[in-house]
Amino acid sequence: MSHGVIARLAARDLQVPEVPAAVGSYVPAVRSGSLVFTSGQIPVIDGRPIATGHLGDDVTLEEGRRCAEQCALRVLAAAASVVDLDRIVRVVKVVGYVASAPGFDGQPAVIDAASAVMEVAFGGSGGHAREAVGVAALPLGVPVEMSAVFEID
Amino acid sequence: MSHGVIARLAARDLQVPEVPAAVGSYVPAVRSGSLVFTSGQIPVIDGRPIATGHLGDDVTLEEGRRCAEQCALRVLAAAASVVDLDRIVRVVKVVGYVASAPGFDGQPAVIDAASAVMEVAFGGSGGHAREAVGVAALPLGVPVEMSAVFEID
Amino acid sequence: MSHGVIARLAARDLQVPEVPAAVGSYVPAVRSGSLVFTSGQIPVIDGRPIATGHLGDDVTLEEGRRCAEQCALRVLAAAASVVDLDRIVRVVKVVGYVASAPGFDGQPAVIDAASAVMEVAFGGSGGHAREAVGVAALPLGVPVEMSAVFEID
Repeated sequence: MSHGVIARLAARDLQVPEVPAAVGSYVPAVRSGSLVFTSGQIPVIDGRPIATGHLGDDVTLEEGRRCAEQCALRVLAAAASVVDLDRIVRVVKVVGYVASAPGFDGQPAVIDAASAVMEVAFGGSGGHAREAVGVAALPLGVPVEMSAVFEID
Repeated sequence: MSHGVIARLAARDLQVPEVPAAVGSYVPAVRSGSLVFTSGQIPVIDGRPIATGHLGDDVTLEEGRRCAEQCALRVLAAAASVVDLDRIVRVVKVVGYVASAPGFDGQPAVIDAASAVMEVAFGGSGGHAREAVGVAALPLGVPVEMSAVFEID
Repeated sequence: MSHGVIARLAARDLQVPEVPAAVGSYVPAVRSGSLVFTSGQIPVIDGRPIATGHLGDDVTLEEGRRCAEQCALRVLAAAASVVDLDRIVRVVKVVGYVASAPGFDGQPAVIDAASAVMEVAFGGSGGHAREAVGVAALPLGVPVEMSAVFEID
Protein backbone atom coordinates (compact mmCIF):
# COMPACT_ATOMS: atom_id res chain seq x y z
CA MET A 1 0.00 0.00 0.00
CA SER A 2 1.65 3.19 -1.20
CA HIS A 3 0.41 5.25 1.75
CA GLY A 4 1.15 2.65 4.39
CA VAL A 5 3.75 2.65 7.14
CA ILE A 6 6.33 0.73 5.13
CA ALA A 7 5.99 3.16 2.20
CA ARG A 8 6.24 6.27 4.36
CA LEU A 9 9.44 4.95 5.89
CA ALA A 10 10.85 3.90 2.51
CA ALA A 11 10.27 7.43 1.19
CA ARG A 12 12.75 8.55 3.83
CA ASP A 13 15.20 5.72 3.07
CA LEU A 14 14.21 3.90 6.22
CA GLN A 15 13.81 0.18 5.75
CA VAL A 16 11.97 -2.13 8.13
CA PRO A 17 14.24 -5.18 8.33
CA GLU A 18 13.25 -8.81 8.33
CA VAL A 19 11.50 -9.91 11.49
CA PRO A 20 14.30 -10.35 13.99
CA ALA A 21 14.72 -13.89 15.20
CA ALA A 22 14.45 -14.04 18.95
CA VAL A 23 17.81 -14.52 20.67
CA GLY A 24 16.78 -16.99 23.35
CA SER A 25 13.46 -18.51 24.32
CA TYR A 26 11.14 -15.61 23.61
CA VAL A 27 9.34 -14.01 20.70
CA PRO A 28 9.72 -10.63 18.93
CA ALA A 29 6.29 -9.36 20.00
CA VAL A 30 3.08 -10.41 21.72
CA ARG A 31 -0.41 -9.11 21.11
CA SER A 32 -2.80 -8.90 24.03
CA GLY A 33 -6.19 -7.44 23.20
CA SER A 34 -5.62 -4.13 21.44
CA LEU A 35 -2.04 -3.80 22.67
CA VAL A 36 1.17 -5.11 21.10
CA PHE A 37 4.22 -5.37 23.35
CA THR A 38 7.55 -5.79 21.56
CA SER A 39 10.72 -7.35 22.85
CA GLY A 40 13.70 -5.10 23.41
CA GLN A 41 15.51 -4.58 20.12
CA ILE A 42 19.18 -3.87 19.65
CA PRO A 43 20.92 -2.22 16.68
CA VAL A 44 22.10 -5.19 14.66
CA ILE A 45 22.14 -5.64 10.91
CA ASP A 46 22.45 -9.20 9.63
CA GLY A 47 23.02 -10.25 13.22
CA ARG A 48 26.01 -7.96 13.79
CA PRO A 49 25.97 -4.88 16.06
CA ILE A 50 26.36 -1.64 14.11
CA ALA A 51 28.23 -0.20 17.10
CA THR A 52 29.37 -1.24 20.56
CA GLY A 53 30.36 0.71 23.64
CA HIS A 54 29.00 3.43 25.88
CA LEU A 55 27.76 6.93 25.24
CA GLY A 56 29.95 9.39 27.07
CA ASP A 57 32.91 7.15 26.48
CA ASP A 58 33.65 5.45 23.13
CA VAL A 59 30.35 6.04 21.29
CA THR A 60 29.48 9.46 19.87
CA LEU A 61 26.05 11.03 20.03
CA GLU A 62 25.72 10.62 16.27
CA GLU A 63 26.55 6.90 16.47
CA GLY A 64 24.12 6.52 19.34
CA ARG A 65 21.37 8.17 17.32
CA ARG A 66 22.04 5.89 14.36
CA CYS A 67 21.71 2.94 16.74
CA ALA A 68 18.43 4.29 18.13
CA GLU A 69 17.06 4.66 14.61
CA GLN A 70 17.96 1.06 13.80
CA CYS A 71 16.39 -0.09 17.08
CA ALA A 72 13.17 1.70 16.13
CA LEU A 73 13.05 0.01 12.73
CA ARG A 74 13.57 -3.36 14.39
CA VAL A 75 10.85 -2.60 16.93
CA LEU A 76 8.52 -2.02 13.97
CA ALA A 77 9.70 -5.29 12.41
CA ALA A 78 8.98 -7.04 15.69
CA ALA A 79 5.46 -5.60 15.81
CA ALA A 80 4.97 -6.63 12.17
CA SER A 81 5.55 -10.23 13.21
CA VAL A 82 2.16 -10.23 14.95
CA VAL A 83 0.11 -7.47 13.25
CA ASP A 84 -0.03 -5.52 10.00
CA LEU A 85 1.71 -2.23 10.81
CA ASP A 86 -1.09 -0.33 9.08
CA ARG A 87 -3.43 -1.47 11.84
CA ILE A 88 -1.46 0.46 14.43
CA VAL A 89 -3.46 3.48 15.55
CA ARG A 90 -1.20 4.71 18.31
CA VAL A 91 2.35 4.40 19.61
CA VAL A 92 1.61 4.07 23.31
CA LYS A 93 5.03 3.84 24.88
CA VAL A 94 8.68 3.76 23.94
CA VAL A 95 11.34 2.68 26.42
CA GLY A 96 14.92 3.46 25.46
CA TYR A 97 17.97 2.15 27.29
CA VAL A 98 21.27 3.86 26.54
CA ALA A 99 24.55 2.28 27.68
CA SER A 100 26.05 5.26 29.45
CA ALA A 101 29.24 6.23 31.19
CA PRO A 102 28.16 7.63 34.59
CA GLY A 103 28.69 11.25 33.47
CA PHE A 104 26.59 11.03 30.28
CA ASP A 105 23.22 12.75 30.60
CA GLY A 106 22.04 13.05 26.98
CA GLN A 107 19.85 9.94 26.79
CA PRO A 108 16.87 11.92 25.40
CA ALA A 109 18.94 13.23 22.47
CA VAL A 110 19.84 9.63 21.59
CA ILE A 111 16.32 8.27 21.83
CA ASP A 112 14.93 11.26 19.89
CA ALA A 113 16.22 9.46 16.78
CA ALA A 114 13.91 6.55 17.57
CA SER A 115 10.99 8.88 18.24
CA ALA A 116 11.62 10.50 14.85
CA VAL A 117 11.17 7.11 13.17
CA MET A 118 7.79 6.74 14.88
CA GLU A 119 6.76 10.16 13.60
CA VAL A 120 7.68 9.23 10.05
CA ALA A 121 5.88 5.91 10.35
CA PHE A 122 2.69 7.09 12.02
CA GLY A 123 2.50 10.85 11.58
CA GLY A 124 0.10 12.47 14.01
CA SER A 125 -0.56 9.12 15.69
CA GLY A 126 3.14 8.71 16.40
CA GLY A 127 3.27 10.85 19.56
CA HIS A 128 4.13 8.55 22.42
CA ALA A 129 4.95 8.35 26.09
CA ARG A 130 8.60 7.62 26.52
CA GLU A 131 11.36 7.03 28.98
CA ALA A 132 15.08 7.19 28.31
CA VAL A 133 17.52 5.90 30.89
CA GLY A 134 21.24 5.26 31.03
CA VAL A 135 22.18 1.67 31.78
CA ALA A 136 25.47 -0.03 32.64
CA ALA A 137 25.64 -2.51 29.76
CA LEU A 138 23.51 -4.08 27.03
CA PRO A 139 23.41 -7.38 25.12
CA LEU A 140 26.31 -7.89 22.67
CA GLY A 141 27.82 -4.66 23.99
CA VAL A 142 25.52 -2.40 21.94
CA PRO A 143 24.91 1.22 23.03
CA VAL A 144 21.10 1.26 22.70
CA GLU A 145 18.13 -1.06 23.32
CA MET A 146 14.51 -0.12 22.81
CA SER A 147 11.04 -1.63 23.18
CA ALA A 148 7.57 -0.28 22.52
CA VAL A 149 3.88 -0.77 23.18
CA PHE A 150 1.49 -0.14 20.27
CA GLU A 151 -2.30 0.09 20.08
CA ILE A 152 -4.11 -1.50 17.16
CA ASP A 153 -7.64 -0.89 15.97
CA MET B 1 -13.28 19.52 44.01
CA SER B 2 -12.34 19.56 47.68
CA HIS B 3 -12.13 15.80 47.96
CA GLY B 4 -10.28 15.21 44.71
CA VAL B 5 -6.73 14.10 44.09
CA ILE B 6 -5.37 17.63 43.78
CA ALA B 7 -6.98 18.65 47.07
CA ARG B 8 -5.75 15.60 48.96
CA LEU B 9 -2.21 16.33 47.81
CA ALA B 10 -2.51 20.03 48.59
CA ALA B 11 -3.58 19.18 52.14
CA ARG B 12 -0.16 17.61 52.53
CA ASP B 13 1.64 20.51 50.86
CA LEU B 14 2.17 18.49 47.71
CA GLN B 15 1.56 20.44 44.55
CA VAL B 16 0.97 18.93 41.13
CA PRO B 17 3.05 21.11 38.81
CA GLU B 18 2.12 22.42 35.41
CA VAL B 19 1.99 19.74 32.75
CA PRO B 20 5.62 19.12 31.87
CA ALA B 21 6.49 20.00 28.32
CA ALA B 22 7.93 17.04 26.50
CA VAL B 23 11.71 17.27 26.02
CA GLY B 24 11.95 15.90 22.50
CA SER B 25 9.42 14.47 20.10
CA TYR B 26 7.09 12.72 22.52
CA VAL B 27 4.20 13.55 24.81
CA PRO B 28 3.78 13.53 28.61
CA ALA B 29 1.23 10.69 28.59
CA VAL B 30 -0.85 8.52 26.28
CA ARG B 31 -4.21 6.97 26.98
CA SER B 32 -5.01 3.60 25.44
CA GLY B 33 -8.39 2.19 26.39
CA SER B 34 -8.65 2.26 30.17
CA LEU B 35 -4.90 2.60 30.68
CA VAL B 36 -2.78 5.76 30.84
CA PHE B 37 0.96 5.37 30.27
CA THR B 38 3.11 8.31 31.33
CA SER B 39 6.51 9.32 30.06
CA GLY B 40 9.42 9.04 32.42
CA GLN B 41 9.54 12.11 34.63
CA ILE B 42 12.60 13.64 36.21
CA PRO B 43 12.82 15.91 39.28
CA VAL B 44 12.92 19.36 37.77
CA ILE B 45 11.23 22.54 38.96
CA ASP B 46 10.88 25.32 36.41
CA GLY B 47 13.02 23.24 34.08
CA ARG B 48 15.95 22.95 36.46
CA PRO B 49 17.00 19.70 38.22
CA ILE B 50 16.50 19.87 41.98
CA ALA B 51 19.55 17.62 42.37
CA THR B 52 22.12 15.85 40.23
CA GLY B 53 24.42 12.92 40.86
CA HIS B 54 24.26 9.33 42.03
CA LEU B 55 22.90 7.70 45.15
CA GLY B 56 25.71 6.00 47.01
CA ASP B 57 28.05 8.73 45.86
CA ASP B 58 27.18 12.44 45.91
CA VAL B 59 23.42 12.27 46.56
CA THR B 60 22.03 11.43 50.00
CA LEU B 61 19.07 9.17 50.61
CA GLU B 62 17.06 12.18 51.77
CA GLU B 63 17.85 14.10 48.56
CA GLY B 64 16.97 11.03 46.52
CA ARG B 65 13.64 10.73 48.27
CA ARG B 66 12.85 14.38 47.65
CA CYS B 67 13.60 13.77 43.97
CA ALA B 68 11.34 10.71 43.91
CA GLU B 69 8.52 12.74 45.44
CA GLN B 70 8.91 15.43 42.79
CA CYS B 71 8.99 12.75 40.06
CA ALA B 72 5.71 11.35 41.38
CA LEU B 73 4.05 14.76 41.31
CA ARG B 74 5.21 15.26 37.74
CA VAL B 75 3.96 11.79 36.78
CA LEU B 76 0.55 12.90 38.07
CA ALA B 77 0.85 16.13 36.07
CA ALA B 78 1.68 14.08 32.99
CA ALA B 79 -1.38 11.87 33.51
CA ALA B 80 -3.48 15.01 34.04
CA SER B 81 -2.54 16.12 30.53
CA VAL B 82 -4.77 13.37 29.11
CA VAL B 83 -7.32 12.59 31.86
CA ASP B 84 -8.91 14.15 34.90
CA LEU B 85 -6.94 12.71 37.83
CA ASP B 86 -10.19 12.04 39.67
CA ARG B 87 -11.05 9.45 37.02
CA ILE B 88 -8.07 7.30 38.03
CA VAL B 89 -9.31 4.19 39.83
CA ARG B 90 -6.04 2.38 40.20
CA VAL B 91 -2.30 2.97 40.11
CA VAL B 92 -1.28 -0.10 38.11
CA LYS B 93 2.49 0.16 37.92
CA VAL B 94 5.31 2.43 38.99
CA VAL B 95 8.80 2.06 37.54
CA GLY B 96 11.55 3.92 39.37
CA TYR B 97 15.08 4.35 38.06
CA VAL B 98 17.69 5.47 40.57
CA ALA B 99 21.11 6.66 39.36
CA SER B 100 23.28 4.49 41.55
CA ALA B 101 26.92 3.96 42.32
CA PRO B 102 27.52 0.21 41.91
CA GLY B 103 27.54 -0.40 45.67
CA PHE B 104 24.21 1.35 46.40
CA ASP B 105 21.37 -1.09 47.10
CA GLY B 106 18.70 1.13 48.64
CA GLN B 107 16.62 1.85 45.53
CA PRO B 108 13.36 0.80 47.25
CA ALA B 109 13.89 3.32 50.07
CA VAL B 110 14.24 6.07 47.46
CA ILE B 111 11.20 5.09 45.43
CA ASP B 112 9.11 4.65 48.60
CA ALA B 113 8.83 8.44 48.59
CA ALA B 114 7.09 8.24 45.21
CA SER B 115 4.83 5.45 46.40
CA ALA B 116 3.86 7.59 49.37
CA VAL B 117 2.66 10.32 47.00
CA MET B 118 0.44 7.77 45.27
CA GLU B 119 -1.02 6.76 48.62
CA VAL B 120 -1.84 10.35 49.48
CA ALA B 121 -3.34 10.94 46.04
CA PHE B 122 -5.42 7.78 45.74
CA GLY B 123 -5.72 6.29 49.23
CA GLY B 124 -6.76 2.66 49.13
CA SER B 125 -6.60 2.61 45.33
CA GLY B 126 -3.00 3.74 45.43
CA GLY B 127 -1.42 0.32 46.01
CA HIS B 128 0.64 -0.49 42.94
CA ALA B 129 3.02 -2.94 41.38
CA ARG B 130 6.48 -1.44 41.30
CA GLU B 131 10.03 -1.97 40.31
CA ALA B 132 13.03 0.00 41.49
CA VAL B 133 16.37 -0.43 39.76
CA GLY B 134 19.74 1.28 39.90
CA VAL B 135 20.87 2.76 36.61
CA ALA B 136 24.16 4.22 35.41
CA ALA B 137 22.98 7.72 34.47
CA LEU B 138 19.82 9.72 33.81
CA PRO B 139 18.83 12.73 31.67
CA LEU B 140 20.27 16.06 32.86
CA GLY B 141 22.25 14.13 35.45
CA VAL B 142 19.30 13.74 37.84
CA PRO B 143 19.30 10.95 40.45
CA VAL B 144 15.75 9.64 39.85
CA GLU B 145 13.38 9.04 36.93
CA MET B 146 9.91 7.52 37.24
CA SER B 147 7.00 6.52 35.04
CA ALA B 148 3.62 4.98 35.80
CA VAL B 149 0.64 3.19 34.35
CA PHE B 150 -2.79 4.21 35.64
CA GLU B 151 -6.26 2.71 35.15
CA ILE B 152 -9.21 5.00 34.61
CA ASP B 153 -12.90 4.20 34.89
CA MET C 1 -5.07 -29.66 39.86
CA SER C 2 -2.49 -32.15 38.63
CA HIS C 3 -2.12 -30.55 35.23
CA GLY C 4 -1.98 -26.97 36.46
CA VAL C 5 0.89 -24.52 36.47
CA ILE C 6 2.00 -25.38 40.01
CA ALA C 7 2.08 -29.10 39.19
CA ARG C 8 4.02 -28.64 35.96
CA LEU C 9 6.63 -26.64 37.80
CA ALA C 10 6.78 -29.10 40.69
CA ALA C 11 7.43 -31.92 38.22
CA ARG C 12 10.64 -30.10 37.36
CA ASP C 13 11.51 -29.43 41.00
CA LEU C 14 10.53 -25.79 40.65
CA GLN C 15 8.57 -24.47 43.58
CA VAL C 16 6.47 -21.32 43.57
CA PRO C 17 7.30 -19.67 46.91
CA GLU C 18 4.95 -18.00 49.31
CA VAL C 19 3.59 -14.72 48.03
CA PRO C 20 6.41 -12.27 48.58
CA ALA C 21 5.59 -9.54 51.04
CA ALA C 22 6.01 -6.15 49.45
CA VAL C 23 9.16 -4.36 50.61
CA GLY C 24 7.78 -0.85 50.96
CA SER C 25 4.38 0.67 50.23
CA TYR C 26 3.37 -1.33 47.19
CA VAL C 27 1.83 -4.68 46.37
CA PRO C 28 3.19 -7.81 44.66
CA ALA C 29 0.88 -7.51 41.65
CA VAL C 30 -2.05 -5.52 40.27
CA ARG C 31 -4.75 -6.72 37.94
CA SER C 32 -6.21 -4.26 35.44
CA GLY C 33 -8.81 -5.71 33.12
CA SER C 34 -7.29 -8.82 31.52
CA LEU C 35 -3.73 -7.84 32.38
CA VAL C 36 -1.72 -8.58 35.51
CA PHE C 37 1.34 -6.43 36.18
CA THR C 38 3.77 -7.77 38.78
CA SER C 39 6.22 -5.86 40.89
CA GLY C 40 9.90 -6.40 40.23
CA GLN C 41 11.05 -9.52 42.05
CA ILE C 42 14.51 -10.23 43.36
CA PRO C 43 16.14 -13.60 44.12
CA VAL C 44 15.58 -14.00 47.81
CA ILE C 45 14.67 -17.11 49.77
CA ASP C 46 13.23 -16.56 53.25
CA GLY C 47 14.03 -12.90 52.82
CA ARG C 48 17.74 -13.43 52.15
CA PRO C 49 19.41 -12.86 48.76
CA ILE C 50 20.69 -16.08 47.21
CA ALA C 51 23.55 -14.09 45.68
CA THR C 52 24.85 -10.53 45.56
CA GLY C 53 27.14 -8.72 43.17
CA HIS C 54 27.51 -8.02 39.47
CA LEU C 55 27.69 -10.25 36.43
CA GLY C 56 31.01 -9.77 34.72
CA ASP C 57 32.61 -9.19 38.09
CA ASP C 58 31.90 -11.33 41.17
CA VAL C 59 28.84 -13.29 39.98
CA THR C 60 29.18 -16.16 37.51
CA LEU C 61 26.78 -16.78 34.65
CA GLU C 62 25.57 -19.93 36.41
CA GLU C 63 24.83 -17.99 39.62
CA GLY C 64 23.09 -15.30 37.58
CA ARG C 65 20.90 -17.90 35.90
CA ARG C 66 19.98 -19.43 39.24
CA CYS C 67 18.95 -15.96 40.40
CA ALA C 68 16.86 -15.39 37.26
CA GLU C 69 15.08 -18.71 37.83
CA GLN C 70 14.25 -17.72 41.40
CA CYS C 71 13.04 -14.30 40.20
CA ALA C 72 10.71 -16.02 37.74
CA LEU C 73 9.25 -18.23 40.44
CA ARG C 74 8.66 -15.20 42.62
CA VAL C 75 7.06 -13.34 39.72
CA LEU C 76 4.63 -16.24 39.45
CA ALA C 77 4.03 -16.07 43.19
CA ALA C 78 3.34 -12.36 42.87
CA ALA C 79 0.82 -12.98 40.08
CA ALA C 80 -0.77 -15.72 42.19
CA SER C 81 -1.52 -13.11 44.85
CA VAL C 82 -4.18 -11.62 42.58
CA VAL C 83 -5.22 -14.44 40.19
CA ASP C 84 -5.22 -18.20 39.96
CA LEU C 85 -2.14 -19.01 37.84
CA ASP C 86 -4.23 -21.46 35.81
CA ARG C 87 -6.24 -18.53 34.46
CA ILE C 88 -3.15 -17.10 32.77
CA VAL C 89 -3.47 -17.56 29.02
CA ARG C 90 -0.42 -15.66 27.92
CA VAL C 91 2.88 -14.34 29.23
CA VAL C 92 2.85 -10.92 27.59
CA LYS C 93 6.12 -9.36 28.66
CA VAL C 94 9.16 -10.13 30.79
CA VAL C 95 11.59 -7.39 31.80
CA GLY C 96 14.90 -8.58 33.22
CA TYR C 97 17.46 -6.31 34.87
CA VAL C 98 20.94 -7.74 35.34
CA ALA C 99 23.44 -5.94 37.60
CA SER C 100 26.35 -5.77 35.20
CA ALA C 101 29.94 -4.64 35.16
CA PRO C 102 30.26 -2.32 32.14
CA GLY C 103 31.96 -5.01 30.00
CA PHE C 104 29.34 -7.73 30.56
CA ASP C 105 27.11 -8.30 27.53
CA GLY C 106 25.45 -11.64 28.29
CA GLN C 107 22.20 -10.37 29.84
CA PRO C 108 20.07 -12.56 27.52
CA ALA C 109 21.84 -15.74 28.66
CA VAL C 110 21.00 -14.82 32.26
CA ILE C 111 17.36 -14.03 31.63
CA ASP C 112 16.95 -17.16 29.47
CA ALA C 113 16.74 -19.04 32.76
CA ALA C 114 13.64 -17.00 33.67
CA SER C 115 12.14 -17.55 30.23
CA ALA C 116 12.66 -21.28 30.67
CA VAL C 117 10.54 -21.20 33.83
CA MET C 118 7.74 -19.54 31.86
CA GLU C 119 7.96 -22.29 29.25
CA VAL C 120 7.66 -25.00 31.89
CA ALA C 121 4.77 -23.19 33.55
CA PHE C 122 2.75 -22.32 30.48
CA GLY C 123 4.04 -24.48 27.62
CA GLY C 124 3.03 -23.12 24.24
CA SER C 125 1.45 -20.05 25.83
CA GLY C 126 4.72 -19.19 27.54
CA GLY C 127 6.35 -17.39 24.58
CA HIS C 128 6.75 -13.77 25.58
CA ALA C 129 8.14 -10.41 24.57
CA ARG C 130 11.19 -9.66 26.64
CA GLU C 131 13.89 -7.18 27.32
CA ALA C 132 17.14 -7.81 29.17
CA VAL C 133 19.31 -4.89 30.21
CA GLY C 134 22.39 -4.43 32.34
CA VAL C 135 21.93 -2.08 35.26
CA ALA C 136 24.31 -0.47 37.73
CA ALA C 137 22.89 -1.85 40.97
CA LEU C 138 19.79 -3.55 42.38
CA PRO C 139 17.98 -3.69 45.73
CA LEU C 140 19.84 -5.60 48.48
CA GLY C 141 22.76 -5.92 46.07
CA VAL C 142 21.23 -8.82 44.13
CA PRO C 143 22.37 -9.55 40.56
CA VAL C 144 18.93 -9.91 38.93
CA GLU C 145 15.48 -8.32 39.13
CA MET C 146 12.52 -9.25 36.98
CA SER C 147 8.91 -8.26 36.41
CA ALA C 148 6.22 -9.50 34.05
CA VAL C 149 2.88 -8.74 32.47
CA PHE C 150 0.42 -11.62 32.12
CA GLU C 151 -2.89 -11.94 30.30
CA ILE C 152 -5.75 -13.80 31.95
CA ASP C 153 -8.91 -15.18 30.37
